Amino acid sequence: MSLTAVGSIAFDSVRTPFGERERMLGGSAVHFSLAASFFTDVRVVGPVGDDFGADELLPGGETFFWQGHYEYDMNVAHTDDTQLNVFADFDPKLSEESKSAEMLFLGNIQPDLQARVRESCPEAEFTALDSMNFWLDSARDSLKQAIAKVDCLLLNDAEIRELTGEPNLARAARAAMDLGPAVIVAKRGEYGAALFTGDEFFAIPGFLLEDVRDPTGAGDSFAGGFLGYLDSRRAAGDSVLDHAILRQAMAYGSVLASFNVEDFGTDRVRSLTREEIDERLRDFRRITHFDVEPAPI
Amino acid sequence: MSLTAVGSIAFDSVRTPFGERERMLGGSAVHFSLAASFFTDVRVVGPVGDDFGADELLPGGETFFWQGHYEYDMNVAHTDDTQLNVFADFDPKLSEESKSAEMLFLGNIQPDLQARVRESCPEAEFTALDSMNFWLDSARDSLKQAIAKVDCLLLNDAEIRELTGEPNLARAARAAMDLGPAVIVAKRGEYGAALFTGDEFFAIPGFLLEDVRDPTGAGDSFAGGFLGYLDSRRAAGDSVLDHAILRQAMAYGSVLASFNVEDFGTDRVRSLTREEIDERLRDFRRITHFDVEPAPI
Repeated sequence: MSLTAVGSIAFDSVRTPFGERERMLGGSAVHFSLAASFFTDVRVVGPVGDDFGADELLPGGETFFWQGHYEYDMNVAHTDDTQLNVFADFDPKLSEESKSAEMLFLGNIQPDLQARVRESCPEAEFTALDSMNFWLDSARDSLKQAIAKVDCLLLNDAEIRELTGEPNLARAARAAMDLGPAVIVAKRGEYGAALFTGDEFFAIPGFLLEDVRDPTGAGDSFAGGFLGYLDSRRAAGDSVLDHAILRQAMAYGSVLASFNVEDFGTDRVRSLTREEIDERLRDFRRITHFDVEPAPI
Repeated sequence: MSLTAVGSIAFDSVRTPFGERERMLGGSAVHFSLAASFFTDVRVVGPVGDDFGADELLPGGETFFWQGHYEYDMNVAHTDDTQLNVFADFDPKLSEESKSAEMLFLGNIQPDLQARVRESCPEAEFTALDSMNFWLDSARDSLKQAIAKVDCLLLNDAEIRELTGEPNLARAARAAMDLGPAVIVAKRGEYGAALFTGDEFFAIPGFLLEDVRDPTGAGDSFAGGFLGYLDSRRAAGDSVLDHAILRQAMAYGSVLASFNVEDFGTDRVRSLTREEIDERLRDFRRITHFDVEPAPI
């Protein structure tokens, strides 16, 4: 089994009410891949500059840099500085191995690049795309064309409303399906996530945590848990469009996002074990499930 | 079994993106009682003026009037006019029958009145209190004293944070428990609700609806479904502090709130049947539950 992820690789400087860190490893491809790595093999494609401590680098450039902070309402990220650096000229070139992936994640990059990567992976059986309001505002048509080429769209709920001009989330998700994808995932920050497929839907609250230190990358960790788990089921011969499997994938995505926010950057997910993930999944089930029995009148 | 509810009885004029209505029957006691009536007998205590078409009225006064509107983000109510009228001089006098209730709901009224009503019902085995940011800002100490006298506090999540000065909801709920109540219910609008008891918690998303016409009274309908169901279980000999029963009550509360918002004022809940409630409860379970099985690696 294999999953190719395209997105940003970044240095993030983040301040929250619970601390501050300089130039941590971050970016959508990094958070996604770490989360997905518990379930499947991931190939990461992203641009790094020669300030990056690795073999793969773009000489003469600097890695994408993001600086931001969060107030007590950590659903809202405040951007203080963005330096695109090598990210501005990113033209993803995939190895033959990456192109042959059966599953593809197009992280939050310029939509025309997402579409081009999609076309270079003709064997991908299931493709998913994440984006953000920046591209909605600056490249709306390109984004719609990229969305039309994928099976699954992951966006914040407010962004799905903005994309479709439909204030009701359930209707907005149906309108987003009309653009192409059969699966719509609405990310709702600390409130969890919702899944829409055909006439079905599914909703899951966020895992309630007493310690939330840094939400940066939570959405990508969600996507990594979600698609990583789906790829493991696909490799085992199951259909990733099976609603019960998609629901489990939503739960795994939520669990990975919940670990992500417990510490700065990748610190928590990097030290995570599969046992901890499955233990939290069982806890998550316990705190969200209720029995139905006739009330006694 | 019996449940006494104290709160406002009002005429509401409401405008939303989906329509406008003048002087509908509303108020916390009304929405609560309608929702609870599907599970138990409810005695309603609230002030009405001689503009009210009923036998019980305060002569020479007019019923509490609220006028407001909602934009597309229907989580936020915009108040255009509030006329307290007879509500300003409301001094609840409970009949002997109302005082003997085993369960008591103190709807959103002045906190000193809530405390006085609580004391006049010494036989109540389980008491719950709802309030709002208006009393948090204008009568904080009184509100804390009233909260100290009840078993269950229902508030919006932002209000629990404001009450306790604790930005994290899970920590805020623990701090609210330190004030007295053993059960904390955080209402989260369209995102559902969370329950905190002892070291346990439970979270439920909102029922996703394609048609939300008027959210006025959703919180009180939630409280009515929640406490009405608990009272039916209490009358059947069960403990209302049993976590499985509290979880079911959370689900019934969510279902009643979901019906409330489908039409203006009390229109939808008034015409509801118990069969429709139980059918939606089963739907709700289906769209929130997932199975746990080891992932295939």
